[in-house]
Amino acid sequence: MALIVQKYGGTSVGSTDRIRSVARRVARFHREGHQLVVVVSAMSGETNRLLALAKEIAPDPDPRELDVIAATGEQVTIGLLAIALHELGLKAKSYTGGQVRVLTDSAFTKARILDINVEPLHKDLAAGAIVIVAGFQGVDADGNITTLGRGGSDTSGVALAAALGASECQIYTDVDGVYTTDPRIVPEARRLDRITFEEMLEMASLGSKVLQIRSVEFAGKYKIKMRVLSSFDDPESTATGTLITYEEDETMEQAIISGIAFNRDEAKISLMGVEDRPGVAYAILGPVAAANIDVDMIVQNIGASGHTDFSFTVHRSEYQKALEVLSREKGKGFTAREIISDNKICKVSLVGIGMRSHVGIAAKMFKALADEGINIQMISTSEIKTSVVIDEKYLELAVRQLHRVFELDQSPQAVWTRNTRISEAFVWTDRHEGG
Amino acid sequence: MALIVQKYGGTSVGSTDRIRSVARRVARFHREGHQLVVVVSAMSGETNRLLALAKEIAPDPDPRELDVIAATGEQVTIGLLAIALHELGLKAKSYTGGQVRVLTDSAFTKARILDINVEPLHKDLAAGAIVIVAGFQGVDADGNITTLGRGGSDTSGVALAAALGASECQIYTDVDGVYTTDPRIVPEARRLDRITFEEMLEMASLGSKVLQIRSVEFAGKYKIKMRVLSSFDDPESTATGTLITYEEDETMEQAIISGIAFNRDEAKISLMGVEDRPGVAYAILGPVAAANIDVDMIVQNIGASGHTDFSFTVHRSEYQKALEVLSREKGKGFTAREIISDNKICKVSLVGIGMRSHVGIAAKMFKALADEGINIQMISTSEIKTSVVIDEKYLELAVRQLHRVFELDQSPQAVWTRNTRISEAFVWTDRHEGG
Repeated sequence: MALIVQKYGGTSVGSTDRIRSVARRVARFHREGHQLVVVVSAMSGETNRLLALAKEIAPDPDPRELDVIAATGEQVTIGLLAIALHELGLKAKSYTGGQVRVLTDSAFTKARILDINVEPLHKDLAAGAIVIVAGFQGVDADGNITTLGRGGSDTSGVALAAALGASECQIYTDVDGVYTTDPRIVPEARRLDRITFEEMLEMASLGSKVLQIRSVEFAGKYKIKMRVLSSFDDPESTATGTLITYEEDETMEQAIISGIAFNRDEAKISLMGVEDRPGVAYAILGPVAAANIDVDMIVQNIGASGHTDFSFTVHRSEYQKALEVLSREKGKGFTAREIISDNKICKVSLVGIGMRSHVGIAAKMFKALADEGINIQMISTSEIKTSVVIDEKYLELAVRQLHRVFELDQSPQAVWTRNTRISEAFVWTDRHEGG
Repeated sequence: MALIVQKYGGTSVGSTDRIRSVARRVARFHREGHQLVVVVSAMSGETNRLLALAKEIAPDPDPRELDVIAATGEQVTIGLLAIALHELGLKAKSYTGGQVRVLTDSAFTKARILDINVEPLHKDLAAGAIVIVAGFQGVDADGNITTLGRGGSDTSGVALAAALGASECQIYTDVDGVYTTDPRIVPEARRLDRITFEEMLEMASLGSKVLQIRSVEFAGKYKIKMRVLSSFDDPESTATGTLITYEEDETMEQAIISGIAFNRDEAKISLMGVEDRPGVAYAILGPVAAANIDVDMIVQNIGASGHTDFSFTVHRSEYQKALEVLSREKGKGFTAREIISDNKICKVSLVGIGMRSHVGIAAKMFKALADEGINIQMISTSEIKTSVVIDEKYLELAVRQLHRVFELDQSPQAVWTRNTRISEAFVWTDRHEGG
């Protein structure tokens, strides 16, 4: 018998039929002898409907009041799921974030969890009840209702799992796990049995939408096993989804590539012939940051004859704004011969914790792209990631080629010997879930 | 400068446009120097939508969880109204029932208010803020969310007015006050300037939907002035609606007729030739009450030769059930020669606190009905009310005739001398508001 936290996203509870299906799944785990704490999102579309009402009244509504409004979405779901469990003859009790209580800071619309009082939940569980908790929400020390921001229900689930000492936190969504890459681009993409937190984090920051990045950080910090599963399988299905785990746990040797991620919405700005002196990077990027523009990749080559080329990428929606900032600042804080920019680029990244101990991965990647005639415009590497910027028209070709070259479509054991088995990798999939 | 509680019902906040209109009205009172606590219902239709979701899952959902779900309706409105007030440049802060906190008993879906902690509200008011409170809801001592039952927002408003020591509680709805009778039946029906609590109570128990009866009881007990006003007037309108007040207050002499109320959905059951002995009324009505059937009028004539006739009315929807109970019990607890029943009847009542000191009112009523050839099937009287049961086809005719005979369409001063002026009367109007 284990204590399990299950989190169901918006599409998983998107109708009363779906909620009944969730209840049947919860009932099965209960029947198998597990104690269950179930965290739910708002019914799909509900959070957007509520926020749209607020926006009808004011373009920029007060965040405290937005949270009061938005928190009702999850509150409806907890009541409905409790009723559905009662219908199956089970004891179940719902809790809002404030009732639990999930104590957060006062950063309305993007609050962080500080503490959770799980004593009452343990009592309910000991009495044989299923506990249902509204995700995405909490209260601050003054009793104001707060929300954790989009996707915050994942964080609610992991935080509850940590506070309760649960054996794992199951994230139910509309995909049945984490894949080697986007199956819409590579039909051979394969569902993974497991992936490490570090890999998941690198992937998430590159655009993965399977899990909210904060929830993965949280789970890694408290060593909570997370598992991604589909709520659209039959409730009696024993599918095990994808386990996200800390690497020290069970993997004999860490493998090389964990996945291929990509970002479509990038834009590149290069400053050519910049004076190569201490402080010039700050002179360029300081004003960009001050304009609240998020900078992603930054590359600076070794300078020759006192000048260097400096490139960075931004989100495509902030491209124009970044260019305006630079042309305004040019000649003040820095000089540059020329500013070259391109908003038709994309970023493709190999991610794998095993890169740390295996050489030649980057070289293999660059050769694979060259074999397809794909020119690399920028390169950036970290310990477990190699990213390249390429023309956006090559995105699909590059992802398919890398997926094939690194044999991600193969079951790991078929590629490597037991002691050097390749790590499984994953990719983002669109998850149409709020909360 | 006064402290005013304003309560806005579901149609008054039925859209974001309506909410903006409410904000403008609140702003006007604020501009005039008043302190304001605003109680709101759920947007019209929202409570029904939420309860329908629950009913989709279970025919008879758990009341605790129903309250968790239903309470979200008002929670959305408080946030939206706060945002609308901010847009007008005003300070405003919303409170759920639990945040205030409105302490209730644990009778889910029909809880009663035990206490309200208004300290934080006084602080907000002193700081120049407008306080917005979710009507219809509270929390019990264990922190469970409770609701006060349909129309409970009126009670929330009055209870807050009492706890805050407000000078009056204004109930904004979709009618502009209390009328002498239903204007759809009597076009000459007249809006009243004032009415007493006792009259309002008698009228409410006869089917008035203008105010929730519990809120009127509450207001009478704590001597809170209530005022019924329309939220559909221009926000700058200075209409004063109808004041509901305790009679000792300002009326020189209490008048005769306060209004004409009627109930359409009645059914009548008569037991003829019942053995006239002590305990027979209980023998008949005990099983009816045990079957959870609400009995309204009860009439028993003086018996002759050891037998009597016993009649009562029930709501038409419980008519069949009541008949089944009686035929099952007949011959056990009581005997009856015959059971006669009729579900095509209605009840018409004259209500007036002045009846206490004026004779001949009932006789005048009966004559007025006889003049129109309307047969009276049952009569029941109390200190301030005379009710008759008649064939339902005569309902409109009877109400119009009584309204005319008692000159309710005339301004009171025109009919009586100053010292015997007739009390103004009112009637129910359909109010399509939940919460």
